[in-house]
Amino acid sequence: MIDAVVVGAAGYAGIETVRLLLGHPDMRVRGATSAGDAGKQVEAVYPALAGAGLTFEDLTVDEIAARGDVAFLAVPHTASLVLTPPLRAAGVTVIDLSADYRLRDAAVYESWYDTPHTSPELLPRAVYGLPEITRADLSGATLVACAGCYPTASALALAPAIEAGLLRQDAPIVVDAKSGVSGAGRSPSATTGFCAANESVRAYAIASHRHTPEIAQTVAAIAGHDVPVCFTPHLVPMTRGLLATCYVPLGADLTTSEAASIYADRYSDEPFVTVFDQGVTPSTKDVRGSNRAHLGLAVDRAARMLVVTCAIDNLVKGAGGQAVQCANIALGLRETAGLDAPAQVV
Amino acid sequence: MIDAVVVGAAGYAGIETVRLLLGHPDMRVRGATSAGDAGKQVEAVYPALAGAGLTFEDLTVDEIAARGDVAFLAVPHTASLVLTPPLRAAGVTVIDLSADYRLRDAAVYESWYDTPHTSPELLPRAVYGLPEITRADLSGATLVACAGCYPTASALALAPAIEAGLLRQDAPIVVDAKSGVSGAGRSPSATTGFCAANESVRAYAIASHRHTPEIAQTVAAIAGHDVPVCFTPHLVPMTRGLLATCYVPLGADLTTSEAASIYADRYSDEPFVTVFDQGVTPSTKDVRGSNRAHLGLAVDRAARMLVVTCAIDNLVKGAGGQAVQCANIALGLRETAGLDAPAQVV
Amino acid sequence: MIDAVVVGAAGYAGIETVRLLLGHPDMRVRGATSAGDAGKQVEAVYPALAGAGLTFEDLTVDEIAARGDVAFLAVPHTASLVLTPPLRAAGVTVIDLSADYRLRDAAVYESWYDTPHTSPELLPRAVYGLPEITRADLSGATLVACAGCYPTASALALAPAIEAGLLRQDAPIVVDAKSGVSGAGRSPSATTGFCAANESVRAYAIASHRHTPEIAQTVAAIAGHDVPVCFTPHLVPMTRGLLATCYVPLGADLTTSEAASIYADRYSDEPFVTVFDQGVTPSTKDVRGSNRAHLGLAVDRAARMLVVTCAIDNLVKGAGGQAVQCANIALGLRETAGLDAPAQVV
Amino acid sequence: MIDAVVVGAAGYAGIETVRLLLGHPDMRVRGATSAGDAGKQVEAVYPALAGAGLTFEDLTVDEIAARGDVAFLAVPHTASLVLTPPLRAAGVTVIDLSADYRLRDAAVYESWYDTPHTSPELLPRAVYGLPEITRADLSGATLVACAGCYPTASALALAPAIEAGLLRQDAPIVVDAKSGVSGAGRSPSATTGFCAANESVRAYAIASHRHTPEIAQTVAAIAGHDVPVCFTPHLVPMTRGLLATCYVPLGADLTTSEAASIYADRYSDEPFVTVFDQGVTPSTKDVRGSNRAHLGLAVDRAARMLVVTCAIDNLVKGAGGQAVQCANIALGLRETAGLDAPAQVV
Repeated sequence: MIDAVVVGAAGYAGIETVRLLLGHPDMRVRGATSAGDAGKQVEAVYPALAGAGLTFEDLTVDEIAARGDVAFLAVPHTASLVLTPPLRAAGVTVIDLSADYRLRDAAVYESWYDTPHTSPELLPRAVYGLPEITRADLSGATLVACAGCYPTASALALAPAIEAGLLRQDAPIVVDAKSGVSGAGRSPSATTGFCAANESVRAYAIASHRHTPEIAQTVAAIAGHDVPVCFTPHLVPMTRGLLATCYVPLGADLTTSEAASIYADRYSDEPFVTVFDQGVTPSTKDVRGSNRAHLGLAVDRAARMLVVTCAIDNLVKGAGGQAVQCANIALGLRETAGLDAPAQVV
Repeated sequence: MIDAVVVGAAGYAGIETVRLLLGHPDMRVRGATSAGDAGKQVEAVYPALAGAGLTFEDLTVDEIAARGDVAFLAVPHTASLVLTPPLRAAGVTVIDLSADYRLRDAAVYESWYDTPHTSPELLPRAVYGLPEITRADLSGATLVACAGCYPTASALALAPAIEAGLLRQDAPIVVDAKSGVSGAGRSPSATTGFCAANESVRAYAIASHRHTPEIAQTVAAIAGHDVPVCFTPHLVPMTRGLLATCYVPLGADLTTSEAASIYADRYSDEPFVTVFDQGVTPSTKDVRGSNRAHLGLAVDRAARMLVVTCAIDNLVKGAGGQAVQCANIALGLRETAGLDAPAQVV
Repeated sequence: MIDAVVVGAAGYAGIETVRLLLGHPDMRVRGATSAGDAGKQVEAVYPALAGAGLTFEDLTVDEIAARGDVAFLAVPHTASLVLTPPLRAAGVTVIDLSADYRLRDAAVYESWYDTPHTSPELLPRAVYGLPEITRADLSGATLVACAGCYPTASALALAPAIEAGLLRQDAPIVVDAKSGVSGAGRSPSATTGFCAANESVRAYAIASHRHTPEIAQTVAAIAGHDVPVCFTPHLVPMTRGLLATCYVPLGADLTTSEAASIYADRYSDEPFVTVFDQGVTPSTKDVRGSNRAHLGLAVDRAARMLVVTCAIDNLVKGAGGQAVQCANIALGLRETAGLDAPAQVV
Repeated sequence: MIDAVVVGAAGYAGIETVRLLLGHPDMRVRGATSAGDAGKQVEAVYPALAGAGLTFEDLTVDEIAARGDVAFLAVPHTASLVLTPPLRAAGVTVIDLSADYRLRDAAVYESWYDTPHTSPELLPRAVYGLPEITRADLSGATLVACAGCYPTASALALAPAIEAGLLRQDAPIVVDAKSGVSGAGRSPSATTGFCAANESVRAYAIASHRHTPEIAQTVAAIAGHDVPVCFTPHLVPMTRGLLATCYVPLGADLTTSEAASIYADRYSDEPFVTVFDQGVTPSTKDVRGSNRAHLGLAVDRAARMLVVTCAIDNLVKGAGGQAVQCANIALGLRETAGLDAPAQVV
């Protein structure tokens, strides 16, 4: 049994990680930290976990290292920069859900996050945590930088097309993404209040969202060269769920059926990815609470565009579930352990 | 491994039963019947169950009996009247989610359901399926009439008070219940359309809902005499969840603390029931997808009224989960088998 | 043209009052105050009012008095205690949406609101603002204490039954009310965040909500004696809307048809009240954005209970609309001026 | 006073037209037809219109012509093909909300709608009803083919950029649109049920939606040549509202500030269009119930893409409100008559 500590466990990504680990056959939760909720029973803050018998604690790095074989860092960016070096020095496997080690180039991080990167020496050892793309590197990894929610859905939607060389070279990819409100985190704010978010949809952070360079980095890594990507996130009135609608300008003619075949082949062995038949579009509802990704695709021949939609649960495949999946691979466990439960049917 | 067939598996209660059985350690789904969706893959209708590898079938009673040790009947009322006698004759354990065997008195059934009861001879052998109230009778039962969603929440909220003799004799109990839209089933209708149900709350079937006699029967059985109950259900704009707010006129003075203590004692050994501390009220969100019931209570001393709220997921503790829990007890399995997963945290 | 100043205009009740006054034929908005948003254009905070040409200001009492013939005080309790005496001294008609002058007895106010009442001398001159109950007193009133949202729906639901003497004397009335999230105001909080409130229903402030004494006061005034009322509010996942389900123990036998007739007669001349036919229940959706109240009723003969549901928009008939209606009467304008627009049909 | 008949008044677009006409100073509703609901009071079907005093009728073309100076046809496609020729022959001004006369080329209509166009001779006289684009032609028009909901938002978002020649010639425009569920109409269906649509977002009709050729036609008319447009609609869990996110590949470098200036100039005299300042994005909530369109824009310089979002209420500016606006212009009334009410503030 592997001992895990979830750091920043009272946030949405953290508590989702706790929830999944509570049902994990090979890992157990030895600590759930929270500065703000330390001392409270987990079930007092999240009654959904009634009976879990956990208490939020405010642990030092040494205490985390003493308790955990693995630490899941569900913390804001910059917090991982502080925690990761000593945890790694103490031999703890770090599964980082923050953005701190995702971007390969510290200068790009510093530019988009507007803060110095204080441990760039760890970047070469950090493995980007998106198993469907980087599985080979994850085995035995000791520092995993889990992919963000938007980049996960975008990369799953784009990878097969780029790998297959379908992309027209001189036109930008458009990623129009829609997220449930939990993507904005647990802290109350004017924009995430029920009355503000309900019965409304809007774009935000157009051309300026911090997931933009992460998507671009993944696309460039697959393509072998930079590809312009125009990414626009939207807030949708639902709690969970993320849909990325990706528009891939095609370099050559292609039918929907041919595209579907390329995608189905690419993901045929993936335990968490389903490619839908032609004409069927994924709904975020159908992945709610699960680690699955559902993909649908169609070719708009008049516009010579491949349109791929990818639905995930932003808190599972986009956060806690992906972290557990990456940890499973890194630690040599069954990749799907703790992640078998299907989504809620309605 | 016990073989189970879910009859009426394409409806919400049926598919929820299927979902839970897919994760059950000691039962497996050997058939999922649906007249309307026969021939379709389950995942084509419910993509949430992608990878389940099941197909809806239109099975005869003989085929059900040949495949199943136990049959879960998630069918409309009167359909169980047709299926149950031959299934029982063939030795199949019947877990009935319909209303057909809930009411002890066939005449009451006939009056409220406006149809003849064609197998009243089975009524004495049917055990009412609400383990927290009828557990002793469920062990070894071969025909279980699972409690309805509203009666489940109402009975859990009322039983401790009635058992403790808190009830004032000459005043009616009020049960004001609020249900998510899935309680109305899967068939499209004018009232369950998104635009009709969204951003709205309304009462329905005032003084005429068919769960009224079922609640009254349970209350009378506990009290030892008839107690007037005024039951009003409401439709609330959410998919799942049911909250019963129960108003119990008190025969004597009582503090909230004393009431909480009575309830906590009553349910201290129940695996699925949590009684909240004074001042904390349950939210339906916190039981979403789980078989748990959360109870909160307060005494209104000026009105001499005990107010108890009980939150359940109408499709789990109010339908499929309760059916699995009853089956576990009836078949001698661990009562919580297949029902361990916590609710979604958000 | 009457000049109006809305004080506390950036909150939900205040901005709703502004919205209604913008379409009023006989009143115009001469000021919209907000301490927090002073200096911002109204449409920058509420883009729905694009083109209104208003700016939030932080006005002194003297400035309010200099600009307004009438002041609408959409402020938290205790703030009206500060504003009202000088505004009245300056001859300004005060339409108070806060709770400060609703309770006739300063001691009751002080007990429930836990603060001293600093201008009890004004209480005898304050007219309770619920035109369907207190219209006769509102004409020419210079200080109107507009009824709260829950008390409004409750009083409209209960008044005809009490006036007609239907009430059984020794049993409490139960008021089980359901409100949209806007009732909690605009400030972000843990309980009104989208992810907390969505897909959930729960009770709150059981036996302790500050609208309890206000409901009791109105019921007692109509009945001529104290009547115990057990009031429980609930939070429902919708932005606007309030449904009060009222349970009236009957002293004598009564049919639904007889009850409907009593209610229809009572409200036959009311411009904003509709009593539905037997079997039809009001939905909050159908009064969204309008000043109307919809009533449905049924008698539960087995429980000898009259069940009345009343649907209003908590921000209109429960706040800004009622304030405008009261102002219209007080100022001698057409009662429905500015309030003619029907609700949104869907 | 102009007499209006609304044909197909029981559908969402029809009843919204009725709602707006009830508050119109210069038009009155002389008939509201519905085959399915004929004989029912309007308020029995739509209680929001309590007090309207209208009854749905099943009128013949002659009866419509006898009663109405103007007929609003809120009917499915092909139904207008039947109604319009005789109504025009009888001298009735036809404001058609259906798709039947929107496409200039009957062959394109026949190809996309898969049905013959039976009155192509009327096409040259039909004016496309999108006043911000076609106002000059609408004055005195006797047959107006009101723009569809998606084409309205798309055209408003795209027109200034195309008119200003910003468009890169060889790359497709992407229109990613999100609509509330009311866009699918009133008939119950599997996909518009509350439990299916709630807490979910999905694309539909990718590369095959019938609004595609309408958008292409408008874009081509403005550009002076065909422009490839890839249009993908999405269903979002809200009742009303439509957001079109439009991606315009830029032919030359441009700042957001320059783009905003071009848009602000273009729409400076438009009574219903607001262009937001840089950094502010429109929310569909803020146009709910109103005829307004809100536009926000940003340039993604790395991808050389102009991103424009346009929010409208699909049932008002996207249907009934636009019809009234077009009728006002066609009939020589004040363009904003009956459309002055602001959106609900929350």
